[in-house]
Amino acid sequence: MAVIIHVDFPHNDVWGKEMAVQMNELAQSINNEPGFIWKFWTESKKDEMAGGVYMFDSRENAEKYLKMHSERLAQFGYSNIRGKVFEINEELSAICKAPLQ
Amino acid sequence: MAVIIHVDFPHNDVWGKEMAVQMNELAQSINNEPGFIWKFWTESKKDEMAGGVYMFDSRENAEKYLKMHSERLAQFGYSNIRGKVFEINEELSAICKAPLQ
Repeated sequence: MAVIIHVDFPHNDVWGKEMAVQMNELAQSINNEPGFIWKFWTESKKDEMAGGVYMFDSRENAEKYLKMHSERLAQFGYSNIRGKVFEINEELSAICKAPLQ
Repeated sequence: MAVIIHVDFPHNDVWGKEMAVQMNELAQSINNEPGFIWKFWTESKKDEMAGGVYMFDSRENAEKYLKMHSERLAQFGYSNIRGKVFEINEELSAICKAPLQ
């Protein structure tokens, strides 16, 4: 059953189009991760944070990705990385028009 | 421009179908919030947390909703509610097949 990952971390560097240029190759590569379905790339200049919301096909694949990605972010120099895997309540999400698989 | 809200909080009560019965009316009502587009209802028995990922049409509407919803959750007895509004990096999200509006 599909799951959601939420990740965020303090960030105060590039934003928007500049981020899109820097991260283009990484974004392409995420499409090849086992069980990956989609990712919203998120950023908040107001709160000086960046992150992502992902859908994966299973908790197992999501947790493997989250571990690898958290280590990669730490290598990029990020700290205080917060990442959680959640099951989806499909009945309630369907009422609220969520784009379920 | 559409934004994402992420909310989560400690929860160790009902899950899944039982949650769906209890929260049905609230879920219906969220469809009427100004600027609301969709919500994933999320839950993690493993981490004893529940929450949501929302799309709203603007940061202004998202922040108004988040303030009201955080107060409502506190009235329900929840504490340590974490909620953040993020802009979407549309270029990177499109590469990663996110369901953009």
